[in-house]
Formats: sequence, structure tokens, C-alpha cells
Amino acid sequence: MNYADRLQRAIDQRGNPCLVGLDPILELLPPEFAAARDTKLPRADRARALGDFCCAVLDVVASKIPAVKPQSAFFEALGSDGVRQFERVVATARNLGLVVIADVKRGDIASTAEAYAHAFLGGTTGVHEDELADAVTLSPFLGSDSISPFLEVCKRTGRGCYVLVRTSNKGSADFQRHGAPELSFQVADAVVRWGSELIGESGFSSVGAVVGATHGAELASFRERMPRTPFLLPGYGAQGAGAKDVVGAFVASTGGPRGALVNSSRGILFAYRDAKYAGKPWKDATRAAVEAMVQDLGAALGSR
Amino acid sequence: MNYADRLQRAIDQRGNPCLVGLDPILELLPPEFAAARDTKLPRADRARALGDFCCAVLDVVASKIPAVKPQSAFFEALGSDGVRQFERVVATARNLGLVVIADVKRGDIASTAEAYAHAFLGGTTGVHEDELADAVTLSPFLGSDSISPFLEVCKRTGRGCYVLVRTSNKGSADFQRHGAPELSFQVADAVVRWGSELIGESGFSSVGAVVGATHGAELASFRERMPRTPFLLPGYGAQGAGAKDVVGAFVASTGGPRGALVNSSRGILFAYRDAKYAGKPWKDATRAAVEAMVQDLGAALGSR
Repeated sequence: MNYADRLQRAIDQRGNPCLVGLDPILELLPPEFAAARDTKLPRADRARALGDFCCAVLDVVASKIPAVKPQSAFFEALGSDGVRQFERVVATARNLGLVVIADVKRGDIASTAEAYAHAFLGGTTGVHEDELADAVTLSPFLGSDSISPFLEVCKRTGRGCYVLVRTSNKGSADFQRHGAPELSFQVADAVVRWGSELIGESGFSSVGAVVGATHGAELASFRERMPRTPFLLPGYGAQGAGAKDVVGAFVASTGGPRGALVNSSRGILFAYRDAKYAGKPWKDATRAAVEAMVQDLGAALGSR
Repeated sequence: MNYADRLQRAIDQRGNPCLVGLDPILELLPPEFAAARDTKLPRADRARALGDFCCAVLDVVASKIPAVKPQSAFFEALGSDGVRQFERVVATARNLGLVVIADVKRGDIASTAEAYAHAFLGGTTGVHEDELADAVTLSPFLGSDSISPFLEVCKRTGRGCYVLVRTSNKGSADFQRHGAPELSFQVADAVVRWGSELIGESGFSSVGAVVGATHGAELASFRERMPRTPFLLPGYGAQGAGAKDVVGAFVASTGGPRGALVNSSRGILFAYRDAKYAGKPWKDATRAAVEAMVQDLGAALGSR
């Protein structure tokens, strides 16, 4: 089954489009994982604490949401020991039935891009099968021939990718809005072309687009340009976007939310630091934050 | 000492601007490293063969050139075991006195970019000191706030970065030439701004630019826009560019080649496959290929 169909099935089953970003920022971990911050401990032990935290988060959220997005950088910050835990977190999430999007934002010339595709999506025996992600995020700066190797692997293995089109950060305007039409629109058109051979029975392609939820007003025009593209919308919660900002990214449907995932990372993982959940154990705070997000999006999407 | 000064000193000492890219492509390794291709072997053993090959290359080239550029993707293709070998190769190169540029082309929002900066350039205790690179390659797609965390770490630790401005691949035209002035020129101007606070005694900044050697005619205009920027020029050799194509990237000097590194990867690592070196053991072929590159560039730069 192709990625877009598997994803849509997972969204339908959970009845919500929530994506939890696994960004284990060392300084923000709950006190019981303080070991990861103790620089006197062996690095492998510190990395294990990082993995333990993410796996504990997975236990809390797995029954409530369709997908998670581990952010590679926070694991790479602890070197190969951290990467070993990234693999563990991916495998744990997949074994819990979650769709896993490896947030790696890779982008390189073709021969190198192929190696990255193998690293995260498989097609060789370099990475163990259960440690491979379902999809990966990609940066388009190097152009079509840097994306093609991923499309080939996606076709062969039933996996997917999300290309950065317009990111959620403030600096996204620096280059992504350059030119007329702006660069983001050019990339969006390319995403449609790249995805045209990977459209599933759901009507969506396995080639998605990352569009920041923080650009609420523009989301509808991106959706118009990319009607069959699954969107990954970062920026909800800690980065400032709310449920009403993302409504334009979804495709009208009587069968529930279709065509987009809304990501929250820090707002879920570190909910225990939020005054709203003061005094709660961190898992209870995280659980409450996920449930609040599911409700918030449900209300906004239901009321269209 | 800041990165630009350390780099220029290394170039002056060796008397050439050659950069060897360590791209250990599994399928192209010499027969004695075939273990890395044998999928029946434990992955850690396969990864070790990859590392053994790169360390053997380092032994051959270390006395001849100033710098090497390990490409992370080919290590990541073997998961955390591969990343462990990436760390080993970086440490080995640094202990041999080489300047090490980690080719990772990362680019992400600020908090994530900071984690990547720590992963490759340090500033925390997550990665062992001798496994940190001297510089890193970065993708600018996410804008200024995705680069700033690297600039901060470079200032604190005396390290450097190279921002993709115009890559060597054919697809680079897809987005990098978008708009008027083209995006690459906008990025070039930003590179000058980002680097303005990191200029060393050599007159060069620690914020460099990746400009494909395959764009010979444009190199001089990039140099004009970025007069104090160290260039990293991929595309020499296997990708088709020759010594005369890169001359425009250098800064006139009576004291030797200044302001650019010229990279060759496959042409050096897999020289044993070249008909020119038929019958030679791979190390002899690699040694001959490095020497030919040094001579070729020396002749072109000397004859300006």
C-alpha cells in the first residue's frame, strides 16, 4: 500500500490529524530524565535517557494520534549514541502502529541523496527494517535531481516524503518568498510534478509538502496549487498557530480530516512546564495536552 | 585562531588548495573492502570496513593536501554503526593534522539548527572533542534564523561553515537561479552579511560558500560579490570541471592559492577504477590521482 493511503487510513482510524513531534531538547526534559543533561555520565547513558523519554511519550500518545515525527537533530547532538536511540524510537513507534516521519530535512546531489534515501527509507540492507521511517522530510534547494532518488525509493518501498515548501520560522521569508512568483510557489508546482506518479487510491500523493501553520492566510492558496498533496503543518502550539489557522490546508470531506497533519512538538512533550498543567506529573500533562489538541482541531475542522 | 586563518595556514603549508571528499560509496569500494557490501555480515562489521577504507585513504593523502570532506550520507546509510565510523574518520583526519569539513548540508529552524551545530561543531559535551569537525556545510533554504545558531557556535569555538550558494549538480538551476536577481546572488549577499563578524587576520571570513566548479563562467562574479568568503568548489574531476574552470574563484596573491578549496571525491577515492591507473593497487592509484590534481591546479593557478 502506498504511503498516502496508509497515512489516510491511520488518520481515519484515529479520527484526528495530530502529529506529535519528538524533539527531545535536553534542557527541557522532565526532572526524572535529568541524567541526559549530566555531562559526567557516559554518553551512551545520556543518550539512553533521551530514548527512554521519547519511548515514554510514545506510550502516552500512541492510542490517540496517527503519527509522530522524531527530529533527528536532537539525537545527533549526542553523536552515534544518539543516533542509536533515534533508531530505537523509530522502531518503538512503528511497533506501536504509528506512522513515523523522520524529520531530517536532507537535500544533496543525486548519488548522495540516494544514500540518504537508503538511510531513512530503505531499499538496501543498511538499516534494519523496523528502524526505517514511513516518510522523511526533504529540503528542495538542490533541485529535481536531488529529489528523484527519494521518489524512486518511495515507489519501490511504499514510502513517502515531505518537501519543504514554506517553513514555519520567521526567516522563511528570506529566500522562500524570493522572486515573482515567489520561490515557494515554484517549489509547490514541482512538488505536484514529483508526486504525480505516486498518487494512491485515497487520491493523495505520497509526495507531501511542509507548509508552516503560521502562514494561515496563505495556506488556502498553497492547497489550491497542490490539491492532492498531503500537507505537514508545523507551527501549531508553541510556535503560535492555532486550530483556525490550519483549516484552509484540509481538503473538504464528509469523512473526517483529510490531506494534512498538524504538528506540535514542545507543546506536547514539555506540557508539564505549562502553567495550565502546573503540579501534574509530566505524563499527565502530556496526555492532557494531546487530548486538548485533538479536541481543538476537531472543533475547528468540524465547524467548517 | 579562527577557522579561516587555520584553513589558510593549512593551504599555505601544503602549497595547494585540494580538498578530498570522503564519499565511501559501497558499490565502488576496492575489492579488499568488499566486506562492506556483504549484507550477510553484521552491520557493525560492514560499517567498520567503510571506516577502514576512509582511514586508509587518509593515510595516503594526509601529507599532500590541507583538508578533507567526509560526506555524512554514505555513513548514515549504515545507520548508527555508520555514524560511529563517521566519528572515527573525523577523529583520524584531525589527528593527522587535516582540516575537516563535515559535509552534512543541514538546515532547520533555530532550536533544531542549534542542536545540529552542537552535533558537528561542539559547544556542548554531546560529541567528543576530537570527533568534532572544523567546519560544516549548510543549506540556506530556511533563511537567516536557521544559520545564526551556527554563527554563534563558530564564534565561540573558532569553527567555520560553508553555505550552499550554487551547487554543482544540473538541478541547481531549478531553484537557485529563480528570480531576478537570481536566488544564488541573494544567498551570496547574505553569506557576506553573516560572515562579516567572523573575519580573521587572513582577511577571509569563517563563513564560506559552496559554489560548483561546474559553473566556471559565473565563478568570477560570485567572487566579486563575496570578496572575503572562502569558497568550497565541488565538481572537479568526476563531475566534469577542470583546473581552468576554477581559477576565477581564487583571490590574486603572490603567496600561493588563496581563498578557495577545490574538491574531488570519486576521482581520488576510486581512481583504481580509472583506465589511466589500470593495474595499479588502489592506494597507488589514489596517490597518483591526488598528485595529478595537485599538479593540475598548481599549473592553472601559477599561470594566471
